[in-house]
Amino acid sequence: MDDRSYDLCKSMVSRTYIAQAVEANVPVHKLVNRLLEQKRIPDDPVPDHVIKSLLNDLADMDTSNFSSNCGAGEREGRVYSQLVAECHYRMSHGIGRSGELTSVQPKAAGSSILAQLTNKMALHALKIAGATHVEDGFVVPMATGMTLCLCFLTLRSLRPSAKYIIWARIDQKSCFKSMITAGFIPVVIENILVGDEVRADVDAIRRKVDELGSENILCIHSTTSCFAPRAFDDLPKIAAMCKEQDIPLIVNNAYGTQSSKCMHLIEEAARIGRMDALVQSLDKNYMVPVGGTLFASYDSGFAEAFSRMYPGRASASPSTDLFITLLSMGVSGYQKLLQERKQVFAYLKEKLEVLATSCNERVLNTPGNNISLGLTLTTLDTDRCTLLGSMLFLRHVSGARVVVPSTVQTVERYTLKGFGTHCEKYPVPYLTVAAGIGMRKEEVDVLVTRLLKVLKEVPTRRESSAPSDRESQCAVRTGSVTQAS
Amino acid sequence: MDDRSYDLCKSMVSRTYIAQAVEANVPVHKLVNRLLEQKRIPDDPVPDHVIKSLLNDLADMDTSNFSSNCGAGEREGRVYSQLVAECHYRMSHGIGRSGELTSVQPKAAGSSILAQLTNKMALHALKIAGATHVEDGFVVPMATGMTLCLCFLTLRSLRPSAKYIIWARIDQKSCFKSMITAGFIPVVIENILVGDEVRADVDAIRRKVDELGSENILCIHSTTSCFAPRAFDDLPKIAAMCKEQDIPLIVNNAYGTQSSKCMHLIEEAARIGRMDALVQSLDKNYMVPVGGTLFASYDSGFAEAFSRMYPGRASASPSTDLFITLLSMGVSGYQKLLQERKQVFAYLKEKLEVLATSCNERVLNTPGNNISLGLTLTTLDTDRCTLLGSMLFLRHVSGARVVVPSTVQTVERYTLKGFGTHCEKYPVPYLTVAAGIGMRKEEVDVLVTRLLKVLKEVPTRRESSAPSDRESQCAVRTGSVTQAS
Amino acid sequence: MDDRSYDLCKSMVSRTYIAQAVEANVPVHKLVNRLLEQKRIPDDPVPDHVIKSLLNDLADMDTSNFSSNCGAGEREGRVYSQLVAECHYRMSHGIGRSGELTSVQPKAAGSSILAQLTNKMALHALKIAGATHVEDGFVVPMATGMTLCLCFLTLRSLRPSAKYIIWARIDQKSCFKSMITAGFIPVVIENILVGDEVRADVDAIRRKVDELGSENILCIHSTTSCFAPRAFDDLPKIAAMCKEQDIPLIVNNAYGTQSSKCMHLIEEAARIGRMDALVQSLDKNYMVPVGGTLFASYDSGFAEAFSRMYPGRASASPSTDLFITLLSMGVSGYQKLLQERKQVFAYLKEKLEVLATSCNERVLNTPGNNISLGLTLTTLDTDRCTLLGSMLFLRHVSGARVVVPSTVQTVERYTLKGFGTHCEKYPVPYLTVAAGIGMRKEEVDVLVTRLLKVLKEVPTRRESSAPSDRESQCAVRTGSVTQAS
Amino acid sequence: MDDRSYDLCKSMVSRTYIAQAVEANVPVHKLVNRLLEQKRIPDDPVPDHVIKSLLNDLADMDTSNFSSNCGAGEREGRVYSQLVAECHYRMSHGIGRSGELTSVQPKAAGSSILAQLTNKMALHALKIAGATHVEDGFVVPMATGMTLCLCFLTLRSLRPSAKYIIWARIDQKSCFKSMITAGFIPVVIENILVGDEVRADVDAIRRKVDELGSENILCIHSTTSCFAPRAFDDLPKIAAMCKEQDIPLIVNNAYGTQSSKCMHLIEEAARIGRMDALVQSLDKNYMVPVGGTLFASYDSGFAEAFSRMYPGRASASPSTDLFITLLSMGVSGYQKLLQERKQVFAYLKEKLEVLATSCNERVLNTPGNNISLGLTLTTLDTDRCTLLGSMLFLRHVSGARVVVPSTVQTVERYTLKGFGTHCEKYPVPYLTVAAGIGMRKEEVDVLVTRLLKVLKEVPTRRESSAPSDRESQCAVRTGSVTQAS
Repeated sequence: MDDRSYDLCKSMVSRTYIAQAVEANVPVHKLVNRLLEQKRIPDDPVPDHVIKSLLNDLADMDTSNFSSNCGAGEREGRVYSQLVAECHYRMSHGIGRSGELTSVQPKAAGSSILAQLTNKMALHALKIAGATHVEDGFVVPMATGMTLCLCFLTLRSLRPSAKYIIWARIDQKSCFKSMITAGFIPVVIENILVGDEVRADVDAIRRKVDELGSENILCIHSTTSCFAPRAFDDLPKIAAMCKEQDIPLIVNNAYGTQSSKCMHLIEEAARIGRMDALVQSLDKNYMVPVGGTLFASYDSGFAEAFSRMYPGRASASPSTDLFITLLSMGVSGYQKLLQERKQVFAYLKEKLEVLATSCNERVLNTPGNNISLGLTLTTLDTDRCTLLGSMLFLRHVSGARVVVPSTVQTVERYTLKGFGTHCEKYPVPYLTVAAGIGMRKEEVDVLVTRLLKVLKEVPTRRESSAPSDRESQCAVRTGSVTQAS
Repeated sequence: MDDRSYDLCKSMVSRTYIAQAVEANVPVHKLVNRLLEQKRIPDDPVPDHVIKSLLNDLADMDTSNFSSNCGAGEREGRVYSQLVAECHYRMSHGIGRSGELTSVQPKAAGSSILAQLTNKMALHALKIAGATHVEDGFVVPMATGMTLCLCFLTLRSLRPSAKYIIWARIDQKSCFKSMITAGFIPVVIENILVGDEVRADVDAIRRKVDELGSENILCIHSTTSCFAPRAFDDLPKIAAMCKEQDIPLIVNNAYGTQSSKCMHLIEEAARIGRMDALVQSLDKNYMVPVGGTLFASYDSGFAEAFSRMYPGRASASPSTDLFITLLSMGVSGYQKLLQERKQVFAYLKEKLEVLATSCNERVLNTPGNNISLGLTLTTLDTDRCTLLGSMLFLRHVSGARVVVPSTVQTVERYTLKGFGTHCEKYPVPYLTVAAGIGMRKEEVDVLVTRLLKVLKEVPTRRESSAPSDRESQCAVRTGSVTQAS
Repeated sequence: MDDRSYDLCKSMVSRTYIAQAVEANVPVHKLVNRLLEQKRIPDDPVPDHVIKSLLNDLADMDTSNFSSNCGAGEREGRVYSQLVAECHYRMSHGIGRSGELTSVQPKAAGSSILAQLTNKMALHALKIAGATHVEDGFVVPMATGMTLCLCFLTLRSLRPSAKYIIWARIDQKSCFKSMITAGFIPVVIENILVGDEVRADVDAIRRKVDELGSENILCIHSTTSCFAPRAFDDLPKIAAMCKEQDIPLIVNNAYGTQSSKCMHLIEEAARIGRMDALVQSLDKNYMVPVGGTLFASYDSGFAEAFSRMYPGRASASPSTDLFITLLSMGVSGYQKLLQERKQVFAYLKEKLEVLATSCNERVLNTPGNNISLGLTLTTLDTDRCTLLGSMLFLRHVSGARVVVPSTVQTVERYTLKGFGTHCEKYPVPYLTVAAGIGMRKEEVDVLVTRLLKVLKEVPTRRESSAPSDRESQCAVRTGSVTQAS
Repeated sequence: MDDRSYDLCKSMVSRTYIAQAVEANVPVHKLVNRLLEQKRIPDDPVPDHVIKSLLNDLADMDTSNFSSNCGAGEREGRVYSQLVAECHYRMSHGIGRSGELTSVQPKAAGSSILAQLTNKMALHALKIAGATHVEDGFVVPMATGMTLCLCFLTLRSLRPSAKYIIWARIDQKSCFKSMITAGFIPVVIENILVGDEVRADVDAIRRKVDELGSENILCIHSTTSCFAPRAFDDLPKIAAMCKEQDIPLIVNNAYGTQSSKCMHLIEEAARIGRMDALVQSLDKNYMVPVGGTLFASYDSGFAEAFSRMYPGRASASPSTDLFITLLSMGVSGYQKLLQERKQVFAYLKEKLEVLATSCNERVLNTPGNNISLGLTLTTLDTDRCTLLGSMLFLRHVSGARVVVPSTVQTVERYTLKGFGTHCEKYPVPYLTVAAGIGMRKEEVDVLVTRLLKVLKEVPTRRESSAPSDRESQCAVRTGSVTQAS
């Protein structure tokens, strides 16, 4: 309905009512226009029906939705199933163009605007989380690992003779594989143990740089967020070294936006050193389904080079999900989620400490990790540790990891000893749990209750009380329970 | 509702009615179970509400949807917005695992089943289209270019010393960029002109192989489907050479499943030669939104290697779209679409020939292309050709391409002369249009009518009748109208 | 999005694309404004997303959807469940007001406009169907019987001393009950048998009028559409009599809009005589769910009196359903449905005649009924007739009626002999089937096939082949299979 | 998916995962079966996707949704628009049958079960609210007034010679009209003023009964919930009199379920006296859209007679809305809403008293009304009172009523002096506001703020400061601002 429509309505109901309705809608129009103008997350949550209406208007701007459209190419956005069309709000052209991931798609003005708004709002979200001076960013419709891979491929064209990527070990397969997939030789820097905490060995990194020669090094691949007892890397130190040695730095910030500490390190590192890209998982940070990554950079030149490396169009689905979600949250909702996560983490730690005491275990002291926590399992032998993992899984606790230090993992010819612990010899077996964004206090209560129950139930001696068939079967099947997701 | 539910209903309505209702539902249960058992596209279209109900049941199998679930990891499939959850039918865990793109995700049994069923149905669709003996296949949630890139990266680990990719030129940017992004040197083999048709020069390919040495060649990158006047490659010959020389062959079959001729070539090539992978766009072949690719192979070893290269989980959205679409079509619906496209292509050709005669132009004779057609524009000079392109766009004809032979395009340091024509010197300017799957006869009528109108309207001499401001502005803005999408 | 929004979009994509998008949307705006101005069914079908967008804009005009609204009354349109809100497109205030069913609801401008547009489109639909000069009409959110009842109650206040309603018998319970519920004495005029056809006895009606005295008669209650072998009433004759005697005429035109003959009779009757109201079922005529009636009148005074009788607000659901449906159909779609129904009726008759011949039965000759047909069952005894009915029901044939002349039905102290046949002694048992709007030829084929199969299967002698337990049980349970729905 | 489906899934994912998924779904199946068995509101809220799945399963039980169905009648539940079908969850047959509103519809087992479950849950809701011993109840898909009307029509057949309905005046049009529409003579009993409160005059009722003779009286029509300063009727006294005199009692309990006091009165009255029916608005009590009523009775004989009076099928929409809503709420959610309303009422009263003091007005002392409150407007003259009403409306305060005692209203030949105040001469003008179910404290804050603002803004002398054109125009248009909704 347009202005004339409202005028015409006056033939049916009192003009006072129409005037009132038009007036009542002004704030909605203002909200939409502010979004189109400022391209930032609105202060307050936007109701679903407003979001749907905006998506509908954007969809109407795609040529494939023009009633008069005549598609004469091989790709015309025709969608067979109405169900599918609705899932995508009638936008079928994806994002990007053969030229560039962030290019405007001439056939799809609406989709292109959606993509741009989402990218700007995503950048805004990063700033809210603490990366105040980040320059550029956009949604990449691939998982974190694949996006890291594309970062490395982008650097290849800029540093054609470089072969090595220096990587302070974290025991998560995707990021390790991203380097191999890109065709580089990962140089694994073993971590050091400081108290309970496993930390990147910055001195060892420096020595390795000197040894290999900076021109042979594609980049340093550093990490902020990981399972305890791994701590975040000392990013400012590493970034400073990268600046000094003219080596690119790629940061795997998989779910680091949830921790103000991680974000502070990134901001500080960018201030004093060199940082080429930081890569965030959309689903781990913004409560959307798996599928996309937020690529960001303090260097818009690198961002552009990266964007140009993606060959062809791509799925708009992660952008659409993030668009809807950030509008739904509003700045206030997002900030609330960040604060609540902090509180839930503190609550989880407290509860876990009480539980630990009651079981003669203890919570690992890992001040360098504000998201994940470790609980020692010193009272259990390896079999019982494994069994504990499957018991938790069967009791509908998902995401808890039991880690037994002796595991050896081989990834594409590379062997990592003590896999799961981020170091070759971690002294104790343990269990990790995390307080991710969106977790509620009540979930912590359920978690701790079930955990306590299982810890009491797990047979203290194998022979004394055999586990149920299904439990041991599951334990066998899940094999190394340390496997990352 | 389960068996007990129906029993309980008998307290409310006659048991005859319940018996009848239960009986009436038997075919639906059979349909679902046949799908789960045979993992092929059902013969007949499945109604939307049955598809939705099945998706709902699958979603209920993901841990994140268990009412009793307690998520203790950093990735628990929490979804903030109800709108987003609904778009994904409450499945948020994506597909794959850090290990492999086709791995089962322990937290998401339902999503994993959906992904597997989709992959099997997609393979079935390929067989229906003509690739009867294809071995393995799966949906990759990345665009065609990026999937080709990952094919090349997979080959790298198998042929570490190879640097070159031999490529019979087609003027579409994404596939060219896919090689550069993967870090290889594309060796462009110029095509030959046979009559109106532009064909791959198989002899030149062979000479280049001899010149470079097969061990230095990563693969041959061949193409089936492209804009006229480019013909499909002579795949059987190339595959035979690949087998003989032990060189991998990667086939860009972007939208070739629509043409029984292309599919026949693929099947024949696989029979007599070597073919490592064929890559199909989901949106161009199956009427789903942009976002995914169907990777397929006659060699399940390579398929597995490829699957293992993808680092991490990925979006389930392209799989879900294809799942819904193939169920909606049924075998009968899909076959009907293929047949109709063939008829629409013939109809388009016929109509275009009539139009051509009336305008002193002619339809390019390209028997090696059953999807795209070219119409000469010999009566127009370059400016008017360009103008024609923008006039069509402004009259809501999308996807038609005006190609002026003199265009030069630079892609990442490589220069392609005569860009858009697939060869250095094509004799005439022309316009291409395509009959893609899902196009209807009435659309052809509209297209030809508008085309005729514009051809009559375009000023025969620049000075005699100036185009409108908007038209010339658009002509300037779209620049080279040959740009691929 | 408003004009300013599109302007702001130009900062993101080329202004040419925006101009094109805006232009492409002009026909949609025109369509909506034409609807608001002319208040008639659009010529062509309106796509679902346009309908949804219009409903969304209307919903935004209801005060309960103002973001700034503050509800201080006892009825503020608050809706608890999001699912429920969506089913009603966020409009919760219903239609009408304490004053009148067609009044504007001050709190709900959007709902009020929707109701008015629907009423006007419904009137338009009646005119398309043939009631060219009908004056006024609106949707009543009650079933046909209850609406007839309200017609009688409206007449009561105008004719306080009248006690009788003269009614030419049709064997459908609701319309009979509507008179009793309203508190009047139905005077049943038995029909006459002319060949196979059962017709209203206009002379007997006239005699009864004379006998009772017109001032004691509330109205004549006449019928156009009924199951064969009942024919439509001779409305012009009855209407002329009503005019002459100053007696109101209420016409039960339950599903008569499907028959151009019925509509012609109505139009003719109104021209030469008196007709106060005609009442149509929404679901039987317009393919919407059960729930509403279209009340119409050639006398806008009576229409207003009727509207004022409804005490309070009412459900907007039937209006919304009809609004969506008539927009979805467009004039062209509605006319096509009417034509197709005519053809399907002819096809059904033809097929049934072939079947009849093959079974030694015949199709009743009922030229006065263009919707329902009767097939004699002279070769079966009563038990087998009953059994036939249940066998059809169990074979998923719904709506076919087996009528055995001997049934006696008592409705609220009144006894109707030969119930189901519309007369006291119909000579043969028979089966009725109808060709309702929306029925397709393929359904006729299925129907005739199943019917033939069942006729062959029904045991010719009870003892020779017992029916299955379930069949006989069902036969017992459904009791008189003549029961109307 | 059925048991076999889950078995088949084991070919795709680990049987442990399937076992876990099946196990995780057990509570959902239990919930559904408990509902089907106990037919009461579940203790806890049911998630939307479970409700949708249940509705889907019920829809599959309707013959019109059988894939094998062949519809041969004139009413086969065909639905033209997919949008409409979805709004009704594919159930199109409505509820009831020609025989009875609560009858099972043979073509629609699923719809019939839905209707029955809703009726039982509605009865359960009434019991939760305090009518512990209520016997029978069901949803009537008509507004409150029309349902009262049908109550009176039902009584007519039981008391054919009775002409009068005795009614203790409340100034709400629908309930007054319901008596006239039904064809009876309303005998208005003027209320008495006790302090600020307007109360039914039970002695006058008794005198009128004696005067008219109980056999001439159809029933007493009594009220529990009304705008302040009207108090609820003294139901126990009236019911006792009805029992003694053998006069039916119909209670208009429009929104009384929200007040435990009203419900207590009803329960008490039923215990010691006679009460034939109580009628509740669905939208006012259960936060669903306008459209239905909950009819209830302590006498299942009368309930059955009432149900049999409704001629024909009826809309299932109000039942579906209530079904979804009560499941969404669960017992806990519903009780919480009742408690919160009580608190919000107390809060509103408190806030209003503070405001009153600051404006030299006072809150009317009406202990007999726990939902609605009155604020005197003694400092304003009539014009300014009227103006205040429109100012509030234009400032998006809906539902507040300004009442000026001098209004005279004529409803169908009956004249009510002092209309709006429930008595002929109320001493002061006032404003009413209500705390309805679902209102939140924040809404009270907004209300009181706006009210205070408007009270300060309203010009103290007409000439000193003219209202804006729009305001005075609106004041004129809304006419008597006392009009009920």
